[in-house]
Amino acid sequence: MQGTPPVKDEKLTTRQLRHQPRLIVNTGDGKGKSTAAFGMALRGWNQGWSIGVYQFVKSPNWRTGEKAAFAALNEVHEQTGQGGPVEWHAMGAGWTWLRSTKEVDHVAMSKEGWARISEQLANETHDLYVLDEFSYVLANGWLDVDEVLETLRNRPGTQHVVMTGRRMPQQVLDAADLVTEMTKIKHPFDTGAKGQAGIEW
Amino acid sequence: MQGTPPVKDEKLTTRQLRHQPRLIVNTGDGKGKSTAAFGMALRGWNQGWSIGVYQFVKSPNWRTGEKAAFAALNEVHEQTGQGGPVEWHAMGAGWTWLRSTKEVDHVAMSKEGWARISEQLANETHDLYVLDEFSYVLANGWLDVDEVLETLRNRPGTQHVVMTGRRMPQQVLDAADLVTEMTKIKHPFDTGAKGQAGIEW
Repeated sequence: MQGTPPVKDEKLTTRQLRHQPRLIVNTGDGKGKSTAAFGMALRGWNQGWSIGVYQFVKSPNWRTGEKAAFAALNEVHEQTGQGGPVEWHAMGAGWTWLRSTKEVDHVAMSKEGWARISEQLANETHDLYVLDEFSYVLANGWLDVDEVLETLRNRPGTQHVVMTGRRMPQQVLDAADLVTEMTKIKHPFDTGAKGQAGIEW
Repeated sequence: MQGTPPVKDEKLTTRQLRHQPRLIVNTGDGKGKSTAAFGMALRGWNQGWSIGVYQFVKSPNWRTGEKAAFAALNEVHEQTGQGGPVEWHAMGAGWTWLRSTKEVDHVAMSKEGWARISEQLANETHDLYVLDEFSYVLANGWLDVDEVLETLRNRPGTQHVVMTGRRMPQQVLDAADLVTEMTKIKHPFDTGAKGQAGIEW
């Protein structure tokens, strides 16, 4: 349970205490891990934060709604100055900066993604990074957990990072400032019901 | 564990199976109950759903970010037709339809709020209702749980309802289709850290 090193309260102003970088993890087998991360991003957007979303797992219906809504909020920001900018990247052909569109393997795509995130962290590009389903990348060994945590530990300024996904490695939980576990108490799929448009995507 | 009565799969089309009304509960002592509800509402917004948000507990910084973001999304809808309309009500003086602004008690305000929701449910006003911190109203006995559940059970059409809050009464969990518990594994407040702008509100 190390987390961010303890802050010397007496040396910081209230404003500084309100702007400590956070590493936040939403994990567990229940619903709400990603939706909570995107709900939190709404707060950041309203603070005028620059938000970077990275999606690491392919899925046919993935985050269609969230993506469209944040694209609309980014548009609002560009047209009116309200809120902040939102940048959205999806793994694979969706990695917008990837020069080639040919199929690449998971390890290579993960490394590409992480290299991009590392660069943005070094440049303090965003105020909030949402690394959606990032646990899969780590749990599958596509990226080295220690290298990832080392990069995060050394990130400059006040850049918040939210990671989601089941089976988050223990080192990440140890390094995180805030960890929430979403647990399924009851789910309609248990009794064979179908996914609902607008609820599941 | 009753939930919505089992659906006769063979009598419904896929489209019908994808449009069953859901009663969804996010509870537990951890973070993410409300943010997950609002993240889900982003999906609904993108489906073109009409969304009604009801906030039942006063707080100085309550959902400022989410409220502003959904107001912007409502504006996008009005101007471009993208997404759906969003209506936002906060308890007390914030109950926008309340004629008087004088202080009223919690029971009276809860009843006013529930009467409004019941009316909207009967009229199928919204596709998704977010009843934020609704458990407090129920756990404190400001509304009768059985009456609330009776109204919900009889709601017409496909109206989804998401309720959030700690200590959700067991009858509500029994009646719900989907229940997720958010559990705190680690939180920076534990070590005396301050709330962060953009993270906590």
